[in-house]
Amino acid sequence: MIPQPLSVRPQPGFAATAPISTGVDPLLPAEGYVLDVSSFGISIRGGGPAGVFYGEQTLRQLFPGSVVPSRLPCVRIEDRPRYAWRGVLLDVARHFMPVPEVLRFIELIAMHKLNVLHLHLTDDQGWRVEVPGWPRLTTVGAWRSCSMRGSRQHERYDDQPHGGYYTADDLRSIVAFAARRHVTVVPEIDMPGHMQAAVASYPMLGNGFAGPVRTAWGVSPHGLNLEPATLDFCRAVLDHICDIFPSPLIGIGGDECGVPGQPWFIAQMAAHLASRGRRVYGWDEILAGGAPRDAVVAAWRGQFPMEKALAAGHEVVACPDTSLYLDYRQSDDPGEPTPVGTLLRLEDVYAYDPGDAVLGAQANVWTEHMESARRVDYMVFPRLCAFAEVVWGPPGRDFAAFRERLEPHLQRLGALGVNYRPLSGPRPWDARAEAPGNPRTLPDRLAELAEMTANLR
Amino acid sequence: MIPQPLSVRPQPGFAATAPISTGVDPLLPAEGYVLDVSSFGISIRGGGPAGVFYGEQTLRQLFPGSVVPSRLPCVRIEDRPRYAWRGVLLDVARHFMPVPEVLRFIELIAMHKLNVLHLHLTDDQGWRVEVPGWPRLTTVGAWRSCSMRGSRQHERYDDQPHGGYYTADDLRSIVAFAARRHVTVVPEIDMPGHMQAAVASYPMLGNGFAGPVRTAWGVSPHGLNLEPATLDFCRAVLDHICDIFPSPLIGIGGDECGVPGQPWFIAQMAAHLASRGRRVYGWDEILAGGAPRDAVVAAWRGQFPMEKALAAGHEVVACPDTSLYLDYRQSDDPGEPTPVGTLLRLEDVYAYDPGDAVLGAQANVWTEHMESARRVDYMVFPRLCAFAEVVWGPPGRDFAAFRERLEPHLQRLGALGVNYRPLSGPRPWDARAEAPGNPRTLPDRLAELAEMTANLR
Repeated sequence: MIPQPLSVRPQPGFAATAPISTGVDPLLPAEGYVLDVSSFGISIRGGGPAGVFYGEQTLRQLFPGSVVPSRLPCVRIEDRPRYAWRGVLLDVARHFMPVPEVLRFIELIAMHKLNVLHLHLTDDQGWRVEVPGWPRLTTVGAWRSCSMRGSRQHERYDDQPHGGYYTADDLRSIVAFAARRHVTVVPEIDMPGHMQAAVASYPMLGNGFAGPVRTAWGVSPHGLNLEPATLDFCRAVLDHICDIFPSPLIGIGGDECGVPGQPWFIAQMAAHLASRGRRVYGWDEILAGGAPRDAVVAAWRGQFPMEKALAAGHEVVACPDTSLYLDYRQSDDPGEPTPVGTLLRLEDVYAYDPGDAVLGAQANVWTEHMESARRVDYMVFPRLCAFAEVVWGPPGRDFAAFRERLEPHLQRLGALGVNYRPLSGPRPWDARAEAPGNPRTLPDRLAELAEMTANLR
Repeated sequence: MIPQPLSVRPQPGFAATAPISTGVDPLLPAEGYVLDVSSFGISIRGGGPAGVFYGEQTLRQLFPGSVVPSRLPCVRIEDRPRYAWRGVLLDVARHFMPVPEVLRFIELIAMHKLNVLHLHLTDDQGWRVEVPGWPRLTTVGAWRSCSMRGSRQHERYDDQPHGGYYTADDLRSIVAFAARRHVTVVPEIDMPGHMQAAVASYPMLGNGFAGPVRTAWGVSPHGLNLEPATLDFCRAVLDHICDIFPSPLIGIGGDECGVPGQPWFIAQMAAHLASRGRRVYGWDEILAGGAPRDAVVAAWRGQFPMEKALAAGHEVVACPDTSLYLDYRQSDDPGEPTPVGTLLRLEDVYAYDPGDAVLGAQANVWTEHMESARRVDYMVFPRLCAFAEVVWGPPGRDFAAFRERLEPHLQRLGALGVNYRPLSGPRPWDARAEAPGNPRTLPDRLAELAEMTANLR
């Protein structure tokens, strides 16, 4: 079973697979559960509805694939998660993902007992939310004429237009689907940088830029200006986002920008969100100049900004790139598709420990080099299975035991149509000769991160 | 429910969802079942294991998405299929599909009570089976340097290498997965035409051609020569295929070739397959010159070859392109991706009736313009839902009633991550400006088919 429950006690005999009774026991933790598979039937007691749901997920893993249960040994399982925030970021800006594939992704993360989908909805390369009164965000901003193929150092492009966006109804259906699986969708409108798609749609938002949606990867220099009308635009977008997403946290990015007025801008947005009863979720760049007091910080640039954020009294979600960026290469095999970032093997993800001070952690799926669900699957699984144990289970995990449990789990994923990376390495067709990468060493990347975070020291 | 069961009789009251009992009742048809959902529990009796399985599929559609059943009204359902052959052809030669996506495809067709997967494993554009002793079939033949994008009239190409192949273990896992869902995998090695990938790997098999695997769509002129060594090659491949696939029928193609010695060649292959206890499954071109007596004929070129095959005493699988080729365009909307073939709307598929003389029918998914599972989903669903009722249910169907049942069914498909085509038409991002099509009119195509089949008259 993955993630491994806290306590699994096999009992003598075989179970009756009916009746299945479920109920809430307020003495249990809200997301915890007790699953009893006995000769009298199956009982799931959860601390709350989420606990019952997680008990059901564990039960699913006890059964083989068929609807009708086969002989099941008796067992008693007691379980509860370590962290409240067990998240995944999905970047639908760099490559759009149609609604059903987003639903499927949610189904897969919920099955692994993860509970937050951080949906990165806008970026330089595409704007994915229809916003009333701002039609060009989707008629213009949701499309690009072509895409870079491979890392930006190679300056290669395909010739395929790419685009797509979600209507409010689309997003509400995603939110509802996720809620039924106890997954909170935390939307992100990245500002004031990462805004070239919006500026391409409405040049008045920018600083004189009059070009198209960005086709290259990497960060655009064309962000928002900080004029009153532009702040009004941002507030209008956030209002629309608040109307759709019940999440108490709203992502506003704040990363990789460096505009002098950024702290002031973030404070304005935080105040507006507060008027809607929401809090800021932002990248650790917002610490420079002082983040809004109740902002939750996604610490992606390593240990130092994480500690800085904790010291400043913020709740923190750990997502260090060198441990949890699932676009980073899975091995040094030359057959890995578009190898970028540092080496991040299954065992490296498994070895990561977020410590006890944080709200939780999230794995980030940036999709520059994942243009289809097939590619997303390959990069995400099985590393997300390892991540599920990082955020669900207690510290002190045994990789060898995990790897053993992983084998039948991969068969289950295969039966669900998940194009996971085989443990033996990439298959010949996973290589992407036409989209070369840019692998980095860990020391090189750590030095770069130290430089990037020097302004926080 | 889709396909609609023969008889659905609601009963008073709500059901106990446990116990679920299943059993075989030899008085029922092998694939038929009786599903009783009553206040005493749920009972599924099938004429055989497949019938039990189909009862389970119907039961799945009675439940919402959760593991734990909600309140279920009592009902008694009696059901059985009209045709023994309820098939889908999947072309993994034009675009390779990784194993997990093939498994997912099988899961989806089994859910629709279809029972044959005709796997088109080789073609001019790629060879997808590893064959012992013939390594270049996969080191060379499984790869092409780029692919045509759009219909061949436009002569456009991308610059992405494409390839992939299945090992014997891969194929065995597909066969086993399908068997558990009562789906027979019928493999096809298309010969003696459609062989450019094999000839590119081993020029000695051809007629002087020394070029690469074909990158354009359309039929290659570079087929097999009919020399003794080449026939030995074909026999070796078929032996390997027979070792992997237990299917009593083995596809050997025989289409779109026109080599003078073809009838003799097909007879040789039929004799070899007979020595392995197997029969030929071939396209209706094999009727010219007389098909092997016990060959099953896939009639794709309309009514005339179908009748010809029946008159010659063959078992026939109907797959007329103008009714069942799911690569054909779904509407006249300019936003349809790469519109090819004749107009083939959902209602057109639904209106097709194979008649009572045939073994069954199959929908064919040719994948020239479907490079990902996302695209396959879009072209296949919901037309395959209509097809499921064509081959499962009795004649005299009501499209309006089907369309009404389809709405909740599409939600279920969406929750499974199926990127189906919305009933309202293509979304903006379904269009493929970079891959233009070549739409045809029905009279134009029928005239062409009449000409193509003139040699059978």
